[in-house]
Amino acid sequence: MNLLLLYPSEALGDGQYRVSGPRLDHLNHVLKVSPGDNLSVGLINGKKGTGRITEIDASGAVITVESLEQAGVPTVAVDLICAIPRPKILKKVLFVTGMFGLRNVHFVRANRTDKSYLQSPLLQDESSQAYLVAGIAQGEWTRLPVVHLHPLFRPFLEDSLPTLPGFALAPKLLPDLVGGGSLDRLLRGGKPEQVILAIGPEGGWVDFERDLFAAKGFRQYSLGQANLRVEFALAAALAQINLLAE
Amino acid sequence: MNLLLLYPSEALGDGQYRVSGPRLDHLNHVLKVSPGDNLSVGLINGKKGTGRITEIDASGAVITVESLEQAGVPTVAVDLICAIPRPKILKKVLFVTGMFGLRNVHFVRANRTDKSYLQSPLLQDESSQAYLVAGIAQGEWTRLPVVHLHPLFRPFLEDSLPTLPGFALAPKLLPDLVGGGSLDRLLRGGKPEQVILAIGPEGGWVDFERDLFAAKGFRQYSLGQANLRVEFALAAALAQINLLAE
Repeated sequence: MNLLLLYPSEALGDGQYRVSGPRLDHLNHVLKVSPGDNLSVGLINGKKGTGRITEIDASGAVITVESLEQAGVPTVAVDLICAIPRPKILKKVLFVTGMFGLRNVHFVRANRTDKSYLQSPLLQDESSQAYLVAGIAQGEWTRLPVVHLHPLFRPFLEDSLPTLPGFALAPKLLPDLVGGGSLDRLLRGGKPEQVILAIGPEGGWVDFERDLFAAKGFRQYSLGQANLRVEFALAAALAQINLLAE
Repeated sequence: MNLLLLYPSEALGDGQYRVSGPRLDHLNHVLKVSPGDNLSVGLINGKKGTGRITEIDASGAVITVESLEQAGVPTVAVDLICAIPRPKILKKVLFVTGMFGLRNVHFVRANRTDKSYLQSPLLQDESSQAYLVAGIAQGEWTRLPVVHLHPLFRPFLEDSLPTLPGFALAPKLLPDLVGGGSLDRLLRGGKPEQVILAIGPEGGWVDFERDLFAAKGFRQYSLGQANLRVEFALAAALAQINLLAE
């Protein structure tokens, strides 16, 4: 936890916030802070800055926000399309999504998505939030990525996706084991403000899916020679985008 | 498991290998293969190619290697220096080290390494092998990275490190939150055959350590705006190296 995130619902007034749960445990047992100590804070979907511990014990901590200055969002707005992975990998994908400060993540059922994955509680309720919040606290962002679920592939790609804001102009990237060339050929020195990135399932997209992505303007490329597990393929793609586009 | 790895000790002669343990479980329960099925195989620290299932049941599988052609190593040889992380993260670092096909990994005690981490069984015996093998099976490599342990930081950096093969000529990379500039400025279009990469502990290297790396020719740069957890910082650094150097 590199940034203590504060929720609007925790505000006590006068810039004070009351924190409990896992963040309190982290303050008490990992950071081992005492009243008067300073730390980095961020308001969920707001700014980030510095705060001070006003009170702390086993039942709760009161944090006083002292300054809020920086906007907690990356330079490049990334909207992710991700084939729904198995639940263990889904948690990691949510964490990475937060850690890199993504704007939206659209989980879509792919041909190689097991039908049971759609029933994951992580996609049904608010339990995904904990992984996203851990991610943005690691990456030092304040904006929570917005999670969307699309159980049907073709209607999402044909009807919903093209209506997303900025879709026509944003580079649409499809890193793929079978793709030729690398990302620098696609971006050619451009510094896009927005990127749309599609990450496939274990085993990859099937030809029908690749063809539909291509028809919507997505371009294939290779992340490198290694076959990467989904959460690391996502991190690798984002690291390369950051290198070229930031 | 994208590649079934075979150990020399499993050879039965005539190109046949007997496999048991977790790889057998994977063949039976995930890949669900039957006699006659083909699959990608690799010989540990050898070549990779294709094989065929000759026999399989709950107690073991016999694989016949049919062809071995490609060398299972990446274009760029990466030697990693990594601050010893906490055990949970160490497992992930070992997996990533294998997945990207690294050549050596030198674990070194950093100022921010808790002394207890040195006692991790993963660093004391062969139990690290399982994570490395899972990594190379994911990444589709055959070469096992060689793990080295250095309990003392200064003697390692001052005495051992400069004697590593290729040390003088290899780019020496120190991705760091406080580094300015990005990797492309350091490599300047060069395509090095070897790279030495140093990844710090949670919380980063301390000034003394940064200064010693700098004195040995390491150059700081930034991976991007996000503060990445160790295993993802490693993956991000390797993805950027691959983009520029492959």
